[in-house]
Amino acid sequence: MTRAIRIGLLGRGVVGEGILRLLADHEASIARRLGCPIEVRRVVGRDRSKAPSPRVDPARLSFDPEDVLADEAIDIVVEVIGGLEPAGDYVRRALEAGKSVVTANKALLAERGHELIELSEERGVDLYFEAAVAGGIPVIRVLREALASDTVTRLYGIVNGTSNYILSRMREEGLDFDEALRQAQAKGYAEADPTLDVGGGDAAHKLTILATLAFGAKLAPDAVATEGIAQVGAIDIAMAERFGYVIKPLAVAEERRDGALSLRVHPALVEAGSVLASVSGALNVVVLHGAMNGPCMLSGYGAGALPTAMSVVSDIVDVGRNLVMGASGRVPQRAWRSEHLEARRVAASGQHECRWYLRFSVLDRPGILARISGVLGAFDVSIEQMVQQGRARDSDAAVQIVMLTHEAREANLTAALREIELLSGVVEPVRALRIERVEDQPADELG
Amino acid sequence: MTRAIRIGLLGRGVVGEGILRLLADHEASIARRLGCPIEVRRVVGRDRSKAPSPRVDPARLSFDPEDVLADEAIDIVVEVIGGLEPAGDYVRRALEAGKSVVTANKALLAERGHELIELSEERGVDLYFEAAVAGGIPVIRVLREALASDTVTRLYGIVNGTSNYILSRMREEGLDFDEALRQAQAKGYAEADPTLDVGGGDAAHKLTILATLAFGAKLAPDAVATEGIAQVGAIDIAMAERFGYVIKPLAVAEERRDGALSLRVHPALVEAGSVLASVSGALNVVVLHGAMNGPCMLSGYGAGALPTAMSVVSDIVDVGRNLVMGASGRVPQRAWRSEHLEARRVAASGQHECRWYLRFSVLDRPGILARISGVLGAFDVSIEQMVQQGRARDSDAAVQIVMLTHEAREANLTAALREIELLSGVVEPVRALRIERVEDQPADELG
Repeated sequence: MTRAIRIGLLGRGVVGEGILRLLADHEASIARRLGCPIEVRRVVGRDRSKAPSPRVDPARLSFDPEDVLADEAIDIVVEVIGGLEPAGDYVRRALEAGKSVVTANKALLAERGHELIELSEERGVDLYFEAAVAGGIPVIRVLREALASDTVTRLYGIVNGTSNYILSRMREEGLDFDEALRQAQAKGYAEADPTLDVGGGDAAHKLTILATLAFGAKLAPDAVATEGIAQVGAIDIAMAERFGYVIKPLAVAEERRDGALSLRVHPALVEAGSVLASVSGALNVVVLHGAMNGPCMLSGYGAGALPTAMSVVSDIVDVGRNLVMGASGRVPQRAWRSEHLEARRVAASGQHECRWYLRFSVLDRPGILARISGVLGAFDVSIEQMVQQGRARDSDAAVQIVMLTHEAREANLTAALREIELLSGVVEPVRALRIERVEDQPADELG
Repeated sequence: MTRAIRIGLLGRGVVGEGILRLLADHEASIARRLGCPIEVRRVVGRDRSKAPSPRVDPARLSFDPEDVLADEAIDIVVEVIGGLEPAGDYVRRALEAGKSVVTANKALLAERGHELIELSEERGVDLYFEAAVAGGIPVIRVLREALASDTVTRLYGIVNGTSNYILSRMREEGLDFDEALRQAQAKGYAEADPTLDVGGGDAAHKLTILATLAFGAKLAPDAVATEGIAQVGAIDIAMAERFGYVIKPLAVAEERRDGALSLRVHPALVEAGSVLASVSGALNVVVLHGAMNGPCMLSGYGAGALPTAMSVVSDIVDVGRNLVMGASGRVPQRAWRSEHLEARRVAASGQHECRWYLRFSVLDRPGILARISGVLGAFDVSIEQMVQQGRARDSDAAVQIVMLTHEAREANLTAALREIELLSGVVEPVRALRIERVEDQPADELG
């Protein structure tokens, strides 16, 4: 094939504009690398009042998605509209029409990725979505390639730059959550409505996509146990530091010994000396553990329109190369189709076992510590370290007791905390944070 | 193609044995993913007295490389002999015969990579060598893919696990170099003759391979300015820490503003809070900076027979998939063939500008500091910070003066130090270490 690779772009927002700019700026080098040019045959927008981009021939601008979906000359549909519908319908129809698709739509892939990948495999076309998870890091590509020769048993990381930025600012400057959030908004790292970021929903979407690929699991959108970072106080960050830990907004997917998957998004304590602890600011990181290979860590910037556009353009070039070589569907996501994996069980909530950081706000009265310890003991939660923050001058003021526990089952801990919160003298809900094990050793050497 | 992918394995050492084990253990899952089985058609060894592997049908064992090179049924030659010859001859002949090649041979690729890749492109076959650089990290793959849509302007990292392990032990335990080296040897991280690792030669090989790919440059084997880590003393690590730095064994390849390449392997100070500083023990890390994309960091274990064998098996599966799809040579290293890049100039030694850490052993006598500062000033090296380590009780004992400089040109610094070492009262060669800038911000946001 020596003719151009023809793309239809759905979406005229900042990412769409970035894609057009990158394709125009790098036209010659992309054509040289690909062996043929990329032609933007059609750009479809919704808002007729929006000024046309200087990079698009007005004759190519359209407001009807059919102009892309029904155009047989278009090889690749690039979807950067976002949201479930109508974007999902467009992607499905493009695949059904035998076109390859590149998309940055993480909500769509978290919700319907399994079905859409299956469709792409049936039709022998490519569905690429590197930009949907950590735009600046080629994690989807590395994960797909890793799956060709290894089995991923655990993956974890920081996949929401906004949350990482906020917790990093809190740690570095001693800010409280609200002030750090305001700074993140001022810097453009957080939206006016930050719920999806700080509540963990965005990270849960990304984790669902990674886990679907890594474990071949067909996951319900609510399969991820999700906690946001708003519960983390400045005092928790300071106390964690005192024990040698840093609080990070983690996403974790792992295969438990019983074969069930554990999928979690939550703030957690990680060792201060670890690489993960040092990934701060708006940086993202994903660590993949193979059954054979040691940990492989990828880090970079995940957020922002430019990394997203870059990532989409990389996918376009990659899909284009498959078209040139007649090798579409070259890297099948076999795990997606493996029937015994599809029904993969997600661990029931409360099954997870780990060490815990607990902070109790209590009135400084005799016997309170004994009563708390007693309840924890009754639920098989054993205390490893304890520290009381100061003493109250005024007997009605609360003091903070922080404990690190040994490994304890989440269901037991939850039941214990429910009981503890009913004790007289315990004046606020208990703050409980997981202590996450990171950076395992590589697999044993051979021989 | 539905028949098996047939491989011929050259080399029966620990890596070769590991490859056979992995191929056998994962036979079913590889065949499922590839769509056809991988058949080990021939294993060629040198040592007839070595016990045959239980994983090889004795009828398939040979001691004549011709049994692989002349066998038209073999699709992929896997070379894990190592060394320049005869391995290089075998690889060349395999490519000439139209076979794809997977190799872990970094010395060969550093020396003749440009020529061999060119040959593979001419013949339309694949030459894969992920295992040659940081086996546990898919850096070659990510770099090749990145080059499809971006231009790499700078890459750096830690690519020798032995050196990183030694410097990490020195820092964590306050050991001196010799003791840390002994521990690395006891742990199996360092060879009995550690020269290639601690002298920087191994890292220079890997940097040559990465830079050849990233910049499309045809590099002479001595293009990398190489310094080992033996010059780093326990006191340097402690003093660096005092100024907020960690000493790491770096490899750096960057495009200078004048278009020349700067290629360096040396220990250097990096900021203590950086991700790079936290990559310790035997971990490797490579950071890629694209012209458009922000930094992308990859980290994992690089050393050891298992990661190497894993990496070779991944390459075999990848090349096999290209064969199945008829897409060999799918990811061409265009940069390799780009004529204007081939003659890429390597910056003359002494051109590099950076901040410096300097340690002077001097007799504690009046005027010595003034004389040192005077010489530095005369050569345009300006001092940013200075600290003297204690005072000598005995006027004949040396004290240590440590300085951090502002940016200074290497040639100027070298000339200044030569003069300073002639001053009376300066009793040892000056220790000079570069302070390396790491973790730049990502490219500007769009719009």
